[in-house]
Amino acid sequence: MAGPLSRSPLAPAGGFPALPRIAGVRFAAAEAGVRYRNRKDVMLAEIAAGSAVAGVFTRSATRSAPVLWCEEKIAAPHDPAQGFAILVNSGNSNAFTGKNGHEAVERTARGAADALGVPLEHVFVASTGVIGEPLPAERITARLAELAASLDEGQAEAAAQAIMTTDTFPKGAAATAAVGGKTVTISGFAKGSGMIEPNMGTMLAYVFTDAAVAQPVLQQMLRELCDVTFNAITVDSDTSTSDTLMVAATGKAGNPVIDSLDGTDAQAFRQALHGVLLDLAQQIVRDGEGATKFVSITVEGAASDASARIVGKAIGNSPLVKTALAGEDPNWGRIVAAIGKAGEPADRDRIGIRFGDILVAENGWVAQSYKEADGAAYMKRPEIAITVQMGVGEGRATVWTCDLTHQYISINADYRS
Amino acid sequence: MAGPLSRSPLAPAGGFPALPRIAGVRFAAAEAGVRYRNRKDVMLAEIAAGSAVAGVFTRSATRSAPVLWCEEKIAAPHDPAQGFAILVNSGNSNAFTGKNGHEAVERTARGAADALGVPLEHVFVASTGVIGEPLPAERITARLAELAASLDEGQAEAAAQAIMTTDTFPKGAAATAAVGGKTVTISGFAKGSGMIEPNMGTMLAYVFTDAAVAQPVLQQMLRELCDVTFNAITVDSDTSTSDTLMVAATGKAGNPVIDSLDGTDAQAFRQALHGVLLDLAQQIVRDGEGATKFVSITVEGAASDASARIVGKAIGNSPLVKTALAGEDPNWGRIVAAIGKAGEPADRDRIGIRFGDILVAENGWVAQSYKEADGAAYMKRPEIAITVQMGVGEGRATVWTCDLTHQYISINADYRS
Repeated sequence: MAGPLSRSPLAPAGGFPALPRIAGVRFAAAEAGVRYRNRKDVMLAEIAAGSAVAGVFTRSATRSAPVLWCEEKIAAPHDPAQGFAILVNSGNSNAFTGKNGHEAVERTARGAADALGVPLEHVFVASTGVIGEPLPAERITARLAELAASLDEGQAEAAAQAIMTTDTFPKGAAATAAVGGKTVTISGFAKGSGMIEPNMGTMLAYVFTDAAVAQPVLQQMLRELCDVTFNAITVDSDTSTSDTLMVAATGKAGNPVIDSLDGTDAQAFRQALHGVLLDLAQQIVRDGEGATKFVSITVEGAASDASARIVGKAIGNSPLVKTALAGEDPNWGRIVAAIGKAGEPADRDRIGIRFGDILVAENGWVAQSYKEADGAAYMKRPEIAITVQMGVGEGRATVWTCDLTHQYISINADYRS
Repeated sequence: MAGPLSRSPLAPAGGFPALPRIAGVRFAAAEAGVRYRNRKDVMLAEIAAGSAVAGVFTRSATRSAPVLWCEEKIAAPHDPAQGFAILVNSGNSNAFTGKNGHEAVERTARGAADALGVPLEHVFVASTGVIGEPLPAERITARLAELAASLDEGQAEAAAQAIMTTDTFPKGAAATAAVGGKTVTISGFAKGSGMIEPNMGTMLAYVFTDAAVAQPVLQQMLRELCDVTFNAITVDSDTSTSDTLMVAATGKAGNPVIDSLDGTDAQAFRQALHGVLLDLAQQIVRDGEGATKFVSITVEGAASDASARIVGKAIGNSPLVKTALAGEDPNWGRIVAAIGKAGEPADRDRIGIRFGDILVAENGWVAQSYKEADGAAYMKRPEIAITVQMGVGEGRATVWTCDLTHQYISINADYRS
């Protein structure tokens, strides 16, 4: 790594938000020296007994040992009388580390279970950083007593910082919702999009709420919302071995348990959770390696929502579209080419494109009203909205991405050398 | 465009090959001023009566008007008593040009038909360059008489130059084969350097032979060979609206007509054609925008050949792998991640990776014998061979790609502005 990166120009103004405390959840962070020096690189979260915990994980065929562990533990039955732990380190992803990888997971998870007095099956772990190097588990376990002793409801920001790799800012978001006459609070943090030591923009996100939510409902809601938030962002099309998104609901708000996806309470909670997840996901794009443009791509009139998302991703992952954005070039022809390569149904003679409110193309050709100067002026903005009309149906999706710049190349060609 | 690009460091030594003449095929090139100034930008090829012509084209949903025209014409019956024409311009792709696009195709094709005295249905056209601007057909038709008058068997190099866009060198290849006691000759040229993941950037290739080959055999052979040549290369994962690969066989060599895919003659011809197509496809990678490394990626032990190709493409299209190659960083962890994201069957604990003859990883972890210094030294070569073992079957495929450099960003962030 060629030295510290400066804060992304797209970072939210005002720095890390003042995250509300969530009753039943405490955090701690420490310097374990896994790889980095002079910064906190391990975070521990303690979650009260009786909480519901849900998670979704990378589908990579080479997913890491911690991900395999979490998939197994999240699917197993949990003892309602026992609490949970989440232990995360940065600097080393413990991915592609063979048998050693599982052993390191077990050793650190057991350490956390012992330190917090929770069952081993209630400990979730994640690692983010370089791939293929053995995780120095003993450096982490050596800090567990200190971590357990310093747990505090107000330490979310320190936890968010400890899981950063090439991130240029820590990412947090919160919301409240009225559920059954109670105000429930949702608070979370994430990391990702960085170039970092390892190899990829590993994405980790942890969200906590005091709402009472049945675990199957929380899991299903998380899966659905993940599709329209974290699964709808892309920086460079490279899927990590370690992507993890978890939500823990402690029930301390005292609302009637949300035990169905339907109804006013579920809707209110879902909407607030959606907002927090989307905010965190968009912050990851804003911290995309080398990013100078925050770009939303909305595809309408597609054969289905899934088809719209495929087209949106094809546009958002196109190196030619992303370099045009970097060059502030309103090169809509590259958007046309990206639509074409997506392989989804489109009516070539009804395709339309807008930049913000500017009609660029309609009915399969450049709009008569379009002036290149208008497109060029629009492209100078830091936030770009592209809307595509496919002309074949009612499907709709939005994806978020960033541009592809020299800085991305610098970060990733120099990195690790 | 920010000025002429210097010749790719990966260009074949010795410049354009001395392409053999193909009896029954004549070429001409001219300056039509479609977009570029002071260079030839239109080429015309005349193919003798009785020839077999085959072609494969981009599957893009937004394919250009010329591609739609060619698809229709190649599928229609041809009059064996009549010759053919191929008319290609650079500077404007005539893609996403609505009704105007088809009219421009018809106007230029009719001009070529009249100039050469061939049926309109025997004229194939292609256009490569900027998307979404009306093709100035009259600039092309104004040159057709001059082009027809200057047709010559020896003008293949001028034709290859006229179809270039961001190419830094013209691409040609040739081979001979013994077929039924006669020597047949195959000679062709191609262009392309960006928007390259042919799915049959803009990729155009024209190959000519004096062999006698039945059209259905030529078409089937072309389709099969395209999969292991042009469809096995990628520069930037962006499929063009205009990709076109055509082969014309004049039969002037006097060999017994190849009218089956089986048998010694068909095999000999196929092998020679394969060589020419692969050579041209690899030259496109060697001229990849900003390329400094020529990279072959062989995937073995996959569930099927198709699965192996998907994994190879996932590696070859990974921005993180490609930037690591640019940085001469033996970052095999990024290869592991790319294998994972491909979504194909893999045995995580049997995956292996080699750089050339260097064993990097085996059985799901870094090899005990591997030294980072060896990998780093290997990465300094201009030609890199990566071999991946999936550990699940017998499937195998090789794809060819290049690295992703600052120069790619410069070319594509500045282009058109």
